[in-house]
Amino acid sequence: MKEIRYQPIGIIHSDIKSLDNAPIQAVYGSDRKGWIELYPAYKEGLMDIEGFSHIILIYHFHLCRGVALRYKPFLDDRPHGVFAIRSPLRPNPVGLSVVKLDSVIDSIIHISGVDMIDGTPLLDIKPFIPQFDNRDGAKIGWLKDKI
Amino acid sequence: MKEIRYQPIGIIHSDIKSLDNAPIQAVYGSDRKGWIELYPAYKEGLMDIEGFSHIILIYHFHLCRGVALRYKPFLDDRPHGVFAIRSPLRPNPVGLSVVKLDSVIDSIIHISGVDMIDGTPLLDIKPFIPQFDNRDGAKIGWLKDKI
Repeated sequence: MKEIRYQPIGIIHSDIKSLDNAPIQAVYGSDRKGWIELYPAYKEGLMDIEGFSHIILIYHFHLCRGVALRYKPFLDDRPHGVFAIRSPLRPNPVGLSVVKLDSVIDSIIHISGVDMIDGTPLLDIKPFIPQFDNRDGAKIGWLKDKI
Repeated sequence: MKEIRYQPIGIIHSDIKSLDNAPIQAVYGSDRKGWIELYPAYKEGLMDIEGFSHIILIYHFHLCRGVALRYKPFLDDRPHGVFAIRSPLRPNPVGLSVVKLDSVIDSIIHISGVDMIDGTPLLDIKPFIPQFDNRDGAKIGWLKDKI
């Protein structure tokens, strides 16, 4: 097993200052504004991003320590495997959220629908493309009738 | 900037043996079968995953070297910023694909709709949940009329 090393490309800022007041998912925090401080070295990579209404953020759960291979999520009273839930207590604490892109000013990206804690290190930004990223009629297992 | 270190949780296997014959996106390779060799230490984390028809794989583009902040993608004849395309030549070479979960046998996960090269190190598996991961009516910028 070879270690994989990444460097943050920027920092996500929000008004969520602790784990206690984070929404369960980005989609539940659609009125929450935030901004990405992209490190200036990567600014050139933003060309044409404003054509997309939504972007995928891949980030590091920097405040989470430890792994729970089975865990009771917020939305249920029974535990499930970590790969069947969206808990941050993962073998690799990688987070994924789709957020709304409001505007880009220089290397600052203003976003809505934020569920990350202020100061979260950002690993990647990808354009959200429903034709690639959505699957109609997907079955959602234990979450059925819960969301 | 603090370095972030991850360990692969398993390896993705497929019949795609080189970059030349990889589909552009997972959605274009829906008949391509593959399998995930999850390292046995993480097997417990698979509990209840079979209720989900689709899973999100986050993985490392292990064969890609270098970064192109502006790049001409397969689907266009003009360059765009790396954060507006899905090219693997990213500051952090993190890949994201939604695949169909066919079956789980012990710590092997059989999948369809594979666009990863055989041997790709896997970083995380998340359940695909349209209510969290899709946004209806999303605008797709330069990709409009191209897909």
